[in-house]
Amino acid sequence: MGKGGQGSDAAAAGEAEENMAAWLVAKNTLKIMPFKLPPLGILVFSGLHDVRVRMKAVGICGSDVHYLREMRIAHFVVKEPMVIGHECAGMIEEVGAGVTHLAAGDRVALEPGISCWRCRHCKGGRYNLCDDMKFFATPPVHGSLANQIVHPADLCFKLPDNVSLEEGAMCEPLSVGVHACRRAGVGAETSVLIMGAGPIGLVALLAAKAFGAPRVAIVDVDEHRLSVARSLGADAAVQVSPRPEDVAEEVARIQAAMGAGAEIDVSLDCAGFSKTLSTALEATRPGGRVCLVGMGHNEMTVPLTSAAIREVDVVGIFRYKDTWPLCIEFLRSGKVDVKPLITHRFGFSQREVEEAFEVSARGRDAIKVMFNL
Amino acid sequence: MGKGGQGSDAAAAGEAEENMAAWLVAKNTLKIMPFKLPPLGILVFSGLHDVRVRMKAVGICGSDVHYLREMRIAHFVVKEPMVIGHECAGMIEEVGAGVTHLAAGDRVALEPGISCWRCRHCKGGRYNLCDDMKFFATPPVHGSLANQIVHPADLCFKLPDNVSLEEGAMCEPLSVGVHACRRAGVGAETSVLIMGAGPIGLVALLAAKAFGAPRVAIVDVDEHRLSVARSLGADAAVQVSPRPEDVAEEVARIQAAMGAGAEIDVSLDCAGFSKTLSTALEATRPGGRVCLVGMGHNEMTVPLTSAAIREVDVVGIFRYKDTWPLCIEFLRSGKVDVKPLITHRFGFSQREVEEAFEVSARGRDAIKVMFNL
Amino acid sequence: MGKGGQGSDAAAAGEAEENMAAWLVAKNTLKIMPFKLPPLGILVFSGLHDVRVRMKAVGICGSDVHYLREMRIAHFVVKEPMVIGHECAGMIEEVGAGVTHLAAGDRVALEPGISCWRCRHCKGGRYNLCDDMKFFATPPVHGSLANQIVHPADLCFKLPDNVSLEEGAMCEPLSVGVHACRRAGVGAETSVLIMGAGPIGLVALLAAKAFGAPRVAIVDVDEHRLSVARSLGADAAVQVSPRPEDVAEEVARIQAAMGAGAEIDVSLDCAGFSKTLSTALEATRPGGRVCLVGMGHNEMTVPLTSAAIREVDVVGIFRYKDTWPLCIEFLRSGKVDVKPLITHRFGFSQREVEEAFEVSARGRDAIKVMFNL
Amino acid sequence: MGKGGQGSDAAAAGEAEENMAAWLVAKNTLKIMPFKLPPLGILVFSGLHDVRVRMKAVGICGSDVHYLREMRIAHFVVKEPMVIGHECAGMIEEVGAGVTHLAAGDRVALEPGISCWRCRHCKGGRYNLCDDMKFFATPPVHGSLANQIVHPADLCFKLPDNVSLEEGAMCEPLSVGVHACRRAGVGAETSVLIMGAGPIGLVALLAAKAFGAPRVAIVDVDEHRLSVARSLGADAAVQVSPRPEDVAEEVARIQAAMGAGAEIDVSLDCAGFSKTLSTALEATRPGGRVCLVGMGHNEMTVPLTSAAIREVDVVGIFRYKDTWPLCIEFLRSGKVDVKPLITHRFGFSQREVEEAFEVSARGRDAIKVMFNL
Repeated sequence: MGKGGQGSDAAAAGEAEENMAAWLVAKNTLKIMPFKLPPLGILVFSGLHDVRVRMKAVGICGSDVHYLREMRIAHFVVKEPMVIGHECAGMIEEVGAGVTHLAAGDRVALEPGISCWRCRHCKGGRYNLCDDMKFFATPPVHGSLANQIVHPADLCFKLPDNVSLEEGAMCEPLSVGVHACRRAGVGAETSVLIMGAGPIGLVALLAAKAFGAPRVAIVDVDEHRLSVARSLGADAAVQVSPRPEDVAEEVARIQAAMGAGAEIDVSLDCAGFSKTLSTALEATRPGGRVCLVGMGHNEMTVPLTSAAIREVDVVGIFRYKDTWPLCIEFLRSGKVDVKPLITHRFGFSQREVEEAFEVSARGRDAIKVMFNL
Repeated sequence: MGKGGQGSDAAAAGEAEENMAAWLVAKNTLKIMPFKLPPLGILVFSGLHDVRVRMKAVGICGSDVHYLREMRIAHFVVKEPMVIGHECAGMIEEVGAGVTHLAAGDRVALEPGISCWRCRHCKGGRYNLCDDMKFFATPPVHGSLANQIVHPADLCFKLPDNVSLEEGAMCEPLSVGVHACRRAGVGAETSVLIMGAGPIGLVALLAAKAFGAPRVAIVDVDEHRLSVARSLGADAAVQVSPRPEDVAEEVARIQAAMGAGAEIDVSLDCAGFSKTLSTALEATRPGGRVCLVGMGHNEMTVPLTSAAIREVDVVGIFRYKDTWPLCIEFLRSGKVDVKPLITHRFGFSQREVEEAFEVSARGRDAIKVMFNL
Repeated sequence: MGKGGQGSDAAAAGEAEENMAAWLVAKNTLKIMPFKLPPLGILVFSGLHDVRVRMKAVGICGSDVHYLREMRIAHFVVKEPMVIGHECAGMIEEVGAGVTHLAAGDRVALEPGISCWRCRHCKGGRYNLCDDMKFFATPPVHGSLANQIVHPADLCFKLPDNVSLEEGAMCEPLSVGVHACRRAGVGAETSVLIMGAGPIGLVALLAAKAFGAPRVAIVDVDEHRLSVARSLGADAAVQVSPRPEDVAEEVARIQAAMGAGAEIDVSLDCAGFSKTLSTALEATRPGGRVCLVGMGHNEMTVPLTSAAIREVDVVGIFRYKDTWPLCIEFLRSGKVDVKPLITHRFGFSQREVEEAFEVSARGRDAIKVMFNL
Repeated sequence: MGKGGQGSDAAAAGEAEENMAAWLVAKNTLKIMPFKLPPLGILVFSGLHDVRVRMKAVGICGSDVHYLREMRIAHFVVKEPMVIGHECAGMIEEVGAGVTHLAAGDRVALEPGISCWRCRHCKGGRYNLCDDMKFFATPPVHGSLANQIVHPADLCFKLPDNVSLEEGAMCEPLSVGVHACRRAGVGAETSVLIMGAGPIGLVALLAAKAFGAPRVAIVDVDEHRLSVARSLGADAAVQVSPRPEDVAEEVARIQAAMGAGAEIDVSLDCAGFSKTLSTALEATRPGGRVCLVGMGHNEMTVPLTSAAIREVDVVGIFRYKDTWPLCIEFLRSGKVDVKPLITHRFGFSQREVEEAFEVSARGRDAIKVMFNL
């Protein structure tokens, strides 16, 4: 049962205090309850290479809310109580005997997924596709909204002095934008269209700018979201309708908004609906690339053949791989500023956890809701 | 009007005989009529770098049949009589003053498209995406089913002694398979699934084997086509139904047919319907690639999101680029044998032209119908 | 004789004034003399697709000085008087009948090389490797230090209002930096080491920053050059000796200067000597890439095997391809500011031409010497 | 001390027989002595994911001979007795509790290197560059010339029925050729030149053919080696001199031998001397690639600048990564036949081990010397 063993009968981590975590126990029910950790060196994760981390900042992701509402995402079903949370940063409390690059007191951001390193994907450099991934708060693996957790040291990345723990926790959503930009080949030569200005669209915007995209246009149905995108550096922000029949007209408006002579080399569909993907496919120049980031529909009805004969490639992403060092470099250098995305902050009490999830679920004015533990 | 000038009042090419061509004059009506050629050196194509070629072998493509039936493909509309044909090989009759690598008597295969060499696509190495392409038998440009034509020398590729003119003409359909394999990254490390065993599926099969694919499975609804594919070297041939609801079961059968431990790294959808693409998307391994080659539907209803989160990329092709030298090398070395694809042969008379198109249009037992001029 | 015909008996370009150019007539001897241009539409270059341009800004390149001193570079020998100059921008005077994207009065930067578009390199997207390239001021082709010249329209790139003609001329040297960055894969994830802070090292620095390199260190023997590099944005500037025996110590200092935890992912050797390349090879991280840009020695004595077993790739560049649009975008957006590189300006008289070349040849405080015509 | 613990006081592997291995104890001195193995499940390698393998076939590599002669290679120094051997295949005796894909009795080929899976190289898909690699018979890690060894299950690859254990052991040298072909981009479109027809040159030849190279030419000073290469499928075999001054003439002969119109797209230098690399650099077409495989010299004196300005890339290799499945597929399908390379066979006794290394060291008629245990 993967990391599940953590919560059962393993010895407490040598601490007087009791370690508490936010458990998803039933639909719409989160409970703060004790969460026992294994001692370091036990073969749960990577043996002597684990660390114990005191959580300091944990963000709420849309998937956390989805698990709370439905107790499942696709074929991942929450069958037993599970600690929630996976966007996090904290401070090292203790390191395993084999850990040399970290020490107690270090401030670290945590990458949530532990891959097997034995399959073709792990060996081939695409460990995010590992079939045997143990990922925070993906059942049956526990998450990280807890006072303390145990995690492999190589997935804990030291933060520079000028990067806060909250910014460290933001490496997780930012990683989605970074991985999308890498898969789509965003760089100094690619103007980018982003469909959707929700939390994922906004981190995609920040990532695209940091990768050097000369122009980034963003599209949404909601003018408030677009105004946020503008304030974060979007070169153009275009309001569209939810009506499928408006695609052709909207494509023309989007292309015009990108500016004279600037073609759309790459589109990142951060909404993931038939209409948004259709728009992205039609708006992208011949030989360009569309990355499907959002997951609105599974079955999509889209003009794929006309994209194919213009050799517009369609790629997708699954989470991310090897993104933390780059995210931290972006934060250190100031190329990315994630602070404006953190709109709400809560402490770690039963009442505040419940309220925080409600605020996050309401959406719109809440972009990122953050716990400070 | 592009190459249209050829047929009007330009001077005859210094030949006593009258040059004849097969003109598409109306729906379902082809007529052999005179076709005047410009003298070499006129600025129609590439000036001093043109050659005059006596056509020897011209194949019929599905698109030729489609133009004959409908007088259009997509937004390309035949508004004035147009010479048809674009899969061809012949013998050099005369070379322009600037041509050094060819001489009268040389046997050559012809690449049909003349690109502008001024746009971003031409300069960036993807000249097949050129907006200003002049392509045989794509209105308003004349084709090559004629006694003689004038063409840029750099698009005429000399055939080795052991490659026949008919095989030379087959470089055109084979190029589609080659370009698809390149776009999909087919090589010694990629097992390949081909959806559809029609003429395009079969050249894709031949190309995939020549690129070194360790295993190639092919899928069709028609057992006869599958038996042809088997005889051409398919490692597995799977019969499927036209029913969309059978996708899951058929994917399982296809994967099993590929052989123990062999995953489908690349799929080439040479049919281009929602069902065939759905099958290809579901059958391809995480991190693999699907190339959309056929054009059955434009709007596709397919499980794109589930492909995206397995990072199965979807790419398309538009014609081909820079494929003739490789096709000729494949034919020279024997890695590809296109001769079994040529099922019917006709001479170049009014009666035979009509009959040949009828045979080609009937399909099934006709794979490639070839004119010998 | 390529463009040589321009200067002989072709008709004047329909202008009352006589067109003058700076001719290289013998070692160390430049003479301003008449330079006749062909009328547009003659088949010298690209027929109806040529334009006539009034030169406004022409920079002096090290290769221009080299030709003046030696009448040759490698196997390119100046056998007959040749107009010099190839870094240039100007104003359109007249356009050929086939030109649609430019009009008289447009301000344009000129790409100097005309490739054949018939060879494998041109068709494959690497036209800079074309064997039949006609390149400004590479014998026997005339250059562009003239009142007016004729050039293919597709090699003339319109400048935005906020980019000056002098900046337009700087697209040529900047293109060397851009092409080096592309070949070396410079981007938001690659820290860069530049060997040599001469004119090429400095444009490489500007290009690397514009491509998003998080850190750029630059190395030279000359402290003045390093101070210029610092003012242009180098994150570290390291002074080294010319002594080969210092490589190991200097590599350690360079790596330290790059900053804690920052490895050198890419090195651009803009000097091209055995010592500079040895330093680059040793300093670059395993799996990194070294681009050889400068051409100091041909035979190099370098520790290639130890680089090879760390899988440090070595790539080179020949000029550039398809760089003007990106250079202009970098100038438009302000990502690159080339103005500080222009240290000297001269008019276009016999006396000033001679003096300008002397200043450029003296080097050091002169980075870029520019003619305003 | 890495795997060193195996030979000391760890518990015997529960076998009545004593496990014996060939130990390198001093220069030119190998001794068959007991070699104790740890029980499975101990945290030496990958804990519950280890297997115990009875060795059946072990080949001698040039590096084994080098260690025997010198007790070191570069900075790897044999300070304590070390079990030698790393090209091997055997039969599974016992599997760890976490192993699911292997069972006792399975015939497997072994990949010799255990990487850390925590560093940037491991995570980025280039685990062969891992700084912390534990590699058979690279001090202080023990090798595999032993009756039994313990190894991670994911580095043991099951052999199909039609692939022998000796062929399985040959996956190791073949992997060098495969990795070189991958790094150099060998495929159906690249004609290949191989410098050196020793054991590495010959596996490179086999690999290049299996990757689909249309033509492969091979060069050596020794006519006997060339005749072997011819029998293995080389399209051309060219004898050269050891004299540096002959490079230009030999390049011309090599290019001619490749055949009319066939350029050398890729060169694999399997010798690694200044002369062989110079020949490879000069012979390769503009835009081609040279892979440095052999390690004759470290400091190379070569015409790198003239290669750079033709954009001939130079890449190197360090061992290999992720090659066993492809090697086994090549052997299964018959695309590669390594059997002709096995020229000598020996049993596993003190006398035979000594004799086998002598035969291997003498070289020339010995290509691969194999132990059958």
